[in-house]
Amino acid sequence: MRFEMNKDKLLYHLIIAQKALSNKTPNPALQGIKMDVLKESIVITTSNSDISIKMTIEDASLNVEEEGSVLIPGKYFIEIVRKLDGQLVQMSYVDDNLLRIEADHSDITLNMLELDDYPNIAFNEKANFVSINVRTLKTIIRQTAFATSTIENRPILTGVNLKIDGKNLTAVATDSYRLSQKTITLENEYDAMQVIVPGKSLEELMKILENNQDHVEIHFDQSRVLFKYNNVLFVSRLLEGNYPETSKLIPQEFPVRIKFNKENLMTAIERASLLSSRDGHNAIVKLDLRADDIVEITSNSPEIGRVLEEVYPVDEVVGSPIKIAFSSKYIIEALKVFASSEVTVNFTGEIRPFIITGEYDENMLQLILPVKTD
Amino acid sequence: MRFEMNKDKLLYHLIIAQKALSNKTPNPALQGIKMDVLKESIVITTSNSDISIKMTIEDASLNVEEEGSVLIPGKYFIEIVRKLDGQLVQMSYVDDNLLRIEADHSDITLNMLELDDYPNIAFNEKANFVSINVRTLKTIIRQTAFATSTIENRPILTGVNLKIDGKNLTAVATDSYRLSQKTITLENEYDAMQVIVPGKSLEELMKILENNQDHVEIHFDQSRVLFKYNNVLFVSRLLEGNYPETSKLIPQEFPVRIKFNKENLMTAIERASLLSSRDGHNAIVKLDLRADDIVEITSNSPEIGRVLEEVYPVDEVVGSPIKIAFSSKYIIEALKVFASSEVTVNFTGEIRPFIITGEYDENMLQLILPVKTD
Repeated sequence: MRFEMNKDKLLYHLIIAQKALSNKTPNPALQGIKMDVLKESIVITTSNSDISIKMTIEDASLNVEEEGSVLIPGKYFIEIVRKLDGQLVQMSYVDDNLLRIEADHSDITLNMLELDDYPNIAFNEKANFVSINVRTLKTIIRQTAFATSTIENRPILTGVNLKIDGKNLTAVATDSYRLSQKTITLENEYDAMQVIVPGKSLEELMKILENNQDHVEIHFDQSRVLFKYNNVLFVSRLLEGNYPETSKLIPQEFPVRIKFNKENLMTAIERASLLSSRDGHNAIVKLDLRADDIVEITSNSPEIGRVLEEVYPVDEVVGSPIKIAFSSKYIIEALKVFASSEVTVNFTGEIRPFIITGEYDENMLQLILPVKTD
Repeated sequence: MRFEMNKDKLLYHLIIAQKALSNKTPNPALQGIKMDVLKESIVITTSNSDISIKMTIEDASLNVEEEGSVLIPGKYFIEIVRKLDGQLVQMSYVDDNLLRIEADHSDITLNMLELDDYPNIAFNEKANFVSINVRTLKTIIRQTAFATSTIENRPILTGVNLKIDGKNLTAVATDSYRLSQKTITLENEYDAMQVIVPGKSLEELMKILENNQDHVEIHFDQSRVLFKYNNVLFVSRLLEGNYPETSKLIPQEFPVRIKFNKENLMTAIERASLLSSRDGHNAIVKLDLRADDIVEITSNSPEIGRVLEEVYPVDEVVGSPIKIAFSSKYIIEALKVFASSEVTVNFTGEIRPFIITGEYDENMLQLILPVKTD
């Protein structure tokens, strides 16, 4: 194996590959980046227990003198390429399973891992795949994945439930204290199906996706899903089991509706959360719609002090006075994913879940469970 | 106590005061910011075991209705002021030792600490003080304090030794593995004296000093030093004991002298330090002046790999081939404080300390002890 190519181009792809690189793993081979040098391209593969990435790099600067494959210790390799000077980097396999890296005045030799130990990873493309605009996919992930559970006692809730039905794709995530749901319309019609993708996998995928007009292909398999984005193949394992039926949790009748400037509501809650009794890590804040239609956000911590914020709704309030308490973390995280600058908070009752919607966030809702206080 | 003032102006001063605020301290009163509201100014005081800060705030926006003093829980107060909306903030003392903070639509009440528990802190100005340009003081601190020891087994080495002799001010810091020394010329002449100021105190002071043409007054006391910078009084404790006589450590004869482009030398050492045998946290790197006057920087880690960097001196080399090994951390930290883009590394022998100097860094030297290798 022997080739040279543009260093920045290589680094660009290594940084993507790094997202699936294992730091600590029972299998040391997975700390490696598999590099297959072909006649006119380089294929890079990385994998951890959740996700795998495979990229085919074709570049005008690539000049292959000899084909071959190596398994390179990932962490060191990326740090080295990042710090190299010069435009071009040359790599060649030398005896005793070593990789020689030359650039500018640097001459670096790196011990390779055992290529034979690398597992065989399937990146199977299907004849039937779902095609989706890359920006839309990014938006769905950003608006739902944050609401997945990070606690492993109900593993299924660490995933985002993706449901396809005809032209509709719905994503749902919940950690049982809050729920996020977003539906989009696909360009084509598909057979009904559903999968549960780990939230963390989707968050890694999101980092790779750019804000352009490209499309992502989604190929579903029994236990895996493959996302194909330009020259990147991204595979995630799926979570097994039945996702809870969440539609029944979402109230349909909202006797109280208050429209807020999102920024005003968020900063008032942030200030209140500075001084508040803590429920675990979550600051508990109270919302009180007064008879004069002004909303009070309050918190109280006997040892530290108390906060009273007045927030003026931006529209006429629908409904009568209501008092409700909630975790500030959940509502702030929910508010952050809205594109709309004005949001409506829809209440069913003082101890019932409430939902937040936004005019410019079609088919998206954020549901939050209140907490009981005295 | 009751006043109102511009919120951003108050926050600006609170952020300075925070540098001397204790987070964990045996004395809970020191977690507080002491605020004395006078007729036309506010005085803010904070203190921890090492440093104390006192500021007198006079501002056109300040409107005092009633004088008074309070001791405010620092961490909460700063977070609250940081997050407030509106231009003006109003503060008033209310019964039961509470502070009421009002701004825009926020109404916050904070439990105060016991003012009587706050220690009396002296900020004594002297008739005889040293006056120094603020930029010069920042430079001295930046070029020396990093070389102090962070290990407490020889407490005296955690400080910077400041010596005044006539018009000369010399700062020296060493952790016994490297030494940094810088001398500047003062505008006036002073009696000979010396003190040892904790390096951490100077680094906190440096954060407060701006890059302007103002002067800082340095007032020396028995066990303390006071820096006066515009409306800020900054007091640090001094370290007691005798600072080691460092001048004998500095070699005077340099049979080998190599001039480098600083950036080239630094990046070569950084790359070499990626793969190197570790001595504690410090990567050991070797420098080898070859007979052809090219310098090799190398490292070798049998498990990972090896690096060979060629660095071309920028000028004719003085002296004959030499091999020396050192901690990459020390040389990189030393190179970073040079203003010069070209530096000269001056060698006395393979197991003797070497020093680095720079054409545009007058009266500054960085000394580094080599390490022994096989």
